[in-house]
Amino acid sequence: MDMESKIERLLKELTLDEKIGMIHGKGLFETKGVERLGIPPLKLSDGPMGVRNEFPGDSWVPVGNSDDYVSYLPSNSALASTWNRKLAGKCGQVLGEEARGRGKDVILAPGINIKRSSLCGRNFEYMSEDPYLAGEMAVPLIEGIQKADVAACVKHFALNNQETDRLWVEVEVSDQALREIYLPAFKKAVKKAGALSLMGAYNRYKGEHCCESKELLTDILRKEWGYDGMVVSDWGAVHDTKKAAESALDLEMSVTYDFDNYCLARPLKEAVEKGEISEGLIDEKVKNILQLMDRLHMLPGEHRQSGSYNTPEHQKTLLKAAEESIVLLKNENHILPLKPERIRKLLVVGDNANRAHSGGGGSAEIKAFYEITPLLGIKMLLGGNTRVDFCQGYLADDFLTKEAGWQEESLKDGGGKTAGEKDTDGALLQKQKELREEALRKAALYDQVIFVGGLNHQQDLEGRDRPDMKLPYAQDQLILELLKAKPDTVVVMAAGSPVEMGAWLSRAKALVWNWYAGMEGGKALAEVLFGKVNPSGRLPESFPFSHMDCPAHCIGEFPGGKTVAYREGIFVGYRYYETRQVPVAFPFGYGLSYTEFTYERLKARVKGNGNGAKVQVTLGVVNTGAMKGKEVVQLYVGRKNSGEDRPIRELKAFDKISLKPGEIKNLEFMLDMEAFSYYDEKEKEFRVEKGAYIISVCRSSHEVWMETEVEL
Amino acid sequence: MDMESKIERLLKELTLDEKIGMIHGKGLFETKGVERLGIPPLKLSDGPMGVRNEFPGDSWVPVGNSDDYVSYLPSNSALASTWNRKLAGKCGQVLGEEARGRGKDVILAPGINIKRSSLCGRNFEYMSEDPYLAGEMAVPLIEGIQKADVAACVKHFALNNQETDRLWVEVEVSDQALREIYLPAFKKAVKKAGALSLMGAYNRYKGEHCCESKELLTDILRKEWGYDGMVVSDWGAVHDTKKAAESALDLEMSVTYDFDNYCLARPLKEAVEKGEISEGLIDEKVKNILQLMDRLHMLPGEHRQSGSYNTPEHQKTLLKAAEESIVLLKNENHILPLKPERIRKLLVVGDNANRAHSGGGGSAEIKAFYEITPLLGIKMLLGGNTRVDFCQGYLADDFLTKEAGWQEESLKDGGGKTAGEKDTDGALLQKQKELREEALRKAALYDQVIFVGGLNHQQDLEGRDRPDMKLPYAQDQLILELLKAKPDTVVVMAAGSPVEMGAWLSRAKALVWNWYAGMEGGKALAEVLFGKVNPSGRLPESFPFSHMDCPAHCIGEFPGGKTVAYREGIFVGYRYYETRQVPVAFPFGYGLSYTEFTYERLKARVKGNGNGAKVQVTLGVVNTGAMKGKEVVQLYVGRKNSGEDRPIRELKAFDKISLKPGEIKNLEFMLDMEAFSYYDEKEKEFRVEKGAYIISVCRSSHEVWMETEVEL
Repeated sequence: MDMESKIERLLKELTLDEKIGMIHGKGLFETKGVERLGIPPLKLSDGPMGVRNEFPGDSWVPVGNSDDYVSYLPSNSALASTWNRKLAGKCGQVLGEEARGRGKDVILAPGINIKRSSLCGRNFEYMSEDPYLAGEMAVPLIEGIQKADVAACVKHFALNNQETDRLWVEVEVSDQALREIYLPAFKKAVKKAGALSLMGAYNRYKGEHCCESKELLTDILRKEWGYDGMVVSDWGAVHDTKKAAESALDLEMSVTYDFDNYCLARPLKEAVEKGEISEGLIDEKVKNILQLMDRLHMLPGEHRQSGSYNTPEHQKTLLKAAEESIVLLKNENHILPLKPERIRKLLVVGDNANRAHSGGGGSAEIKAFYEITPLLGIKMLLGGNTRVDFCQGYLADDFLTKEAGWQEESLKDGGGKTAGEKDTDGALLQKQKELREEALRKAALYDQVIFVGGLNHQQDLEGRDRPDMKLPYAQDQLILELLKAKPDTVVVMAAGSPVEMGAWLSRAKALVWNWYAGMEGGKALAEVLFGKVNPSGRLPESFPFSHMDCPAHCIGEFPGGKTVAYREGIFVGYRYYETRQVPVAFPFGYGLSYTEFTYERLKARVKGNGNGAKVQVTLGVVNTGAMKGKEVVQLYVGRKNSGEDRPIRELKAFDKISLKPGEIKNLEFMLDMEAFSYYDEKEKEFRVEKGAYIISVCRSSHEVWMETEVEL
Repeated sequence: MDMESKIERLLKELTLDEKIGMIHGKGLFETKGVERLGIPPLKLSDGPMGVRNEFPGDSWVPVGNSDDYVSYLPSNSALASTWNRKLAGKCGQVLGEEARGRGKDVILAPGINIKRSSLCGRNFEYMSEDPYLAGEMAVPLIEGIQKADVAACVKHFALNNQETDRLWVEVEVSDQALREIYLPAFKKAVKKAGALSLMGAYNRYKGEHCCESKELLTDILRKEWGYDGMVVSDWGAVHDTKKAAESALDLEMSVTYDFDNYCLARPLKEAVEKGEISEGLIDEKVKNILQLMDRLHMLPGEHRQSGSYNTPEHQKTLLKAAEESIVLLKNENHILPLKPERIRKLLVVGDNANRAHSGGGGSAEIKAFYEITPLLGIKMLLGGNTRVDFCQGYLADDFLTKEAGWQEESLKDGGGKTAGEKDTDGALLQKQKELREEALRKAALYDQVIFVGGLNHQQDLEGRDRPDMKLPYAQDQLILELLKAKPDTVVVMAAGSPVEMGAWLSRAKALVWNWYAGMEGGKALAEVLFGKVNPSGRLPESFPFSHMDCPAHCIGEFPGGKTVAYREGIFVGYRYYETRQVPVAFPFGYGLSYTEFTYERLKARVKGNGNGAKVQVTLGVVNTGAMKGKEVVQLYVGRKNSGEDRPIRELKAFDKISLKPGEIKNLEFMLDMEAFSYYDEKEKEFRVEKGAYIISVCRSSHEVWMETEVEL
């Protein structure tokens, strides 16, 4: 029997109650199956960094058994930082196999929202500020997941670019920005990767909640893009029975335990019985869910893959991903890589050297099978001949972020702190001072100091945006003093989003950026620090000096109030910094290597014509240094004399290649017309303007190495 | 410069204070180095299941950083159960590399005391009841450790066969039992494996503490065996400055923080200054320690290996060891291996399925990098297509062991429990009942039930012997009822020492014995249960029906009082059960396979004569089953008509071989005269009696498959 008739047959046999059981959560992560027809419940699980720990159906207190330890993946920000599509695909396979191994059908990943502001609390879960990079990395990731008979669930559709008031905030954005910046990655996820499911966002757009939005779900997703996958709400994002029933949403999930009172539960049944809502609307949803089940081989008589988790192969893949995610930002005097044989005594300073991050961040939290911290990774690599000591250096206690203006609301409430609280704070400040002094006192006694600081999941956290980009816990002062005491101190920042580094950046000779890099993260970091691995990560987002340089803040609004206006339009991230010539700490696409690369023979030729025309770009890349390494070749396109209304350049192609010392590789890119198009708000379509275009090969959005022109 | 003169030179330069700093703990696991001469501190660490977590020098509260997670090895009982010398060697390498990776010089392993009674709390850390097996497994383990420039520390020398009153108990043992049963493994460790260090025991022998014993340390170890390695005390086992100074002990370690008051610290210095103790005695000790350092390449100018820990290679080795340690005890109707494709719903019952054991047991505790529990292992193997549910089944709470007469002293003290305590106990008993009922209710609803129970480190624990062999936590009743409800229930016992199983043993069709099998233990168990691995473990000790069948209890004393008389003499373990025809639940050497083996063509020939004579034994082994598997070929020797004074048979050779279905392998063993010798108490030496000897090839100490005779 073909799929359509199989589903039609099932649909006919289902009662209204059974259908309603299938389109809303009957547990926090599970729908109700229909046993008599062999329709299983649909099991969903967070999230992008691994399959979340197990919850009982009706409680947010984890079950707590030993069977839900899983592989801990690098965050999406780290993954995007690899610029390695194949590796993203392998990580997707890991996630898919683990989800299936844990008995899940839908894994709520990846998150591909655009990083509009550096402050969004959930940025660590997202890919990039650039829609092309986000889309290109999401596609293989999704394809990888779905190889395991598990549905990826691309999220959060759409315009979920902040956590503040995320449940209600109304996003005002131009059609052009929507189409050029905020939707392309989703479109690719749906059309190119074939994401089997998609999650609607919490926020509102054009007066409607995204999960009930006619424009987003029906007009764009279903009609324009022809999407027939399953659309699930974010947990608790559905507010109105009638609107949700009439929308293109298929499945309502939520955070509360009163499952029968969900919009698409008893209230829906009553409305159908009263004739206010047509049962046909429900059939559409059920059909999409059955279709998903069929695609996942969940229906009777099908053979489905079984999955596996915590395999050594998974760990190997995640190590590779962690290795390639690390970005070398500074390396004056070739301080790095460090030479173990020259270091008898090494001091590692900083709370993040010793901190496991896997259990935090919100819905991305997991129970990691293990997590190699930087300190553990360094000691595992160096072994017993180097003495490695650790100083915490700073106290990563939440109170200190409060002192810095954090959690303003709770401060407001507690404006009059009790004497006891003040005492505690005083004791903590005293402890903070002692930790700093201990680190500084010791630093001078060691051959080498490595500082590992940054953020943790108190800042990179679902549900809350950062107030600014400042380093918490008074780290600036500590780093500055460490660099004075020990100028060769290697600074490692571990964080899911950029931080202000101006206080000490010019003094730091070596600066390494480490994301939340998964279970093998500390091992990968040690390998990079000691030269076992040549770093090859490139920033997937601009690192501004301060959030106030960020267009969302200095032109648009962030986080806004009841509404948030995206007044910066398409000038998000480097599109703004490069076009408006605003300097940043580190530009999009930036990252150093222990070797050197040069480019040669850049050529561009137009092939064919009309909509089918393509631009063939060829160039040679040479490793002119002394170490094997990987280079990310970035191709940007800009309208010649683009003026004020277009970004000076936009990423349109990239490739990551490995080169031995002296090796030359010739690359060819074929750019289709999409790479040259812009969204015409009047015509409501993408168009290619006639004229000259500059094609640049860049080391980052800011460093053009060669450029050439084509006439279209 | 040769070693001797290098050490002589250093000795001459050392002051009395410096020398004293080297022969006693200046931290809980560290001596004082002499920086001006480049002599480093000596760093020691527990223990046999992995390198113990890091302690500050002067506190038993662990440091608590993330850098001391390590590989968790199968316990020595599990390792002995593999009967695989090569694998023991590889595990030794893992332990040595990890110790070195963690910066240690001496790893306090292996423990090779003889399992005289099944009740000794520390049996899980020991190898066997049989001196030959213990010695044969200890040798490659020690050699493996020492490949990493780390000293093994064979322990506890000697006669430390119980935990009750271990600090003071006086052991009364015949010279024959000492020489034939309790010393041979130590002798092999020292003479054959070249153990670089050895730990003296807590208990007393011939009126002296073992760490101050002239007979054990000076006469036997140093003089007879020619041992020039380092002798370290067990922690707190030294009691008398003069006696310890004059003994062959080199290093005093203890558990308290008043390092200067250790016997070999200030009191020793004062005695030397008063002329009561000669400084030459100290020099001897320092010389042994310097010699150890030299052998470990710790002295200036030497190159020393660096070590590593938590490597994937280590994990692979430990998986292999765990796999081969599992003993299949019953398999009626070929219930095992289970077939995943026939199981849609699997119920796993029992606290041990879900319990991590690595953090317990006393000084053998470690911080495991990860630990795969049986539940996790089963789910990792089965993946998402089989639903696996878990019921705890019984409450593994200490109170329940108290109810069973456990911890008599604390019971005595609390004979009058408070009302609150009684309430708590009542609530726990109620909970226990609920857990059992839940398991029984669910069992009937599943395709297959696996029970995983046994002991945990509340029973298998340093410092305390078990009162009996009964299963704690009312497991007998649960297992019996489970087997009634679901007769095909597979019973897995996870424990470090045997338990009474009579209440349900005849009903259980499939019984699997799992030791504390290390970080990969649950994975290995799942592989065996589902037929990915063919079990090949053999019991390294007899499993009596009850401890009262055990010769230490029914003939000798256990645990004795101020003294404990080993009246059973050489009739320990199977030497007793086989000779006296006392039935046991499972005999020494026993273990099933998923395939079948037969033996053929057993022949024995005497080669040469006198002390140099050897007996060549040849035989063929055939895999007559349908699966690849490993067989442990066991050769026992007994005096023909041995009568009452000699064991009917004693293990004298074994080999583990892998055979494909239908494959035949021919084996040759060469037995030297030691295999035929006994200790003559009058002559004070080992002698070979003239006459006929029976050589048997056995599947266990109880199952003789073929035998032949030789005349000596």
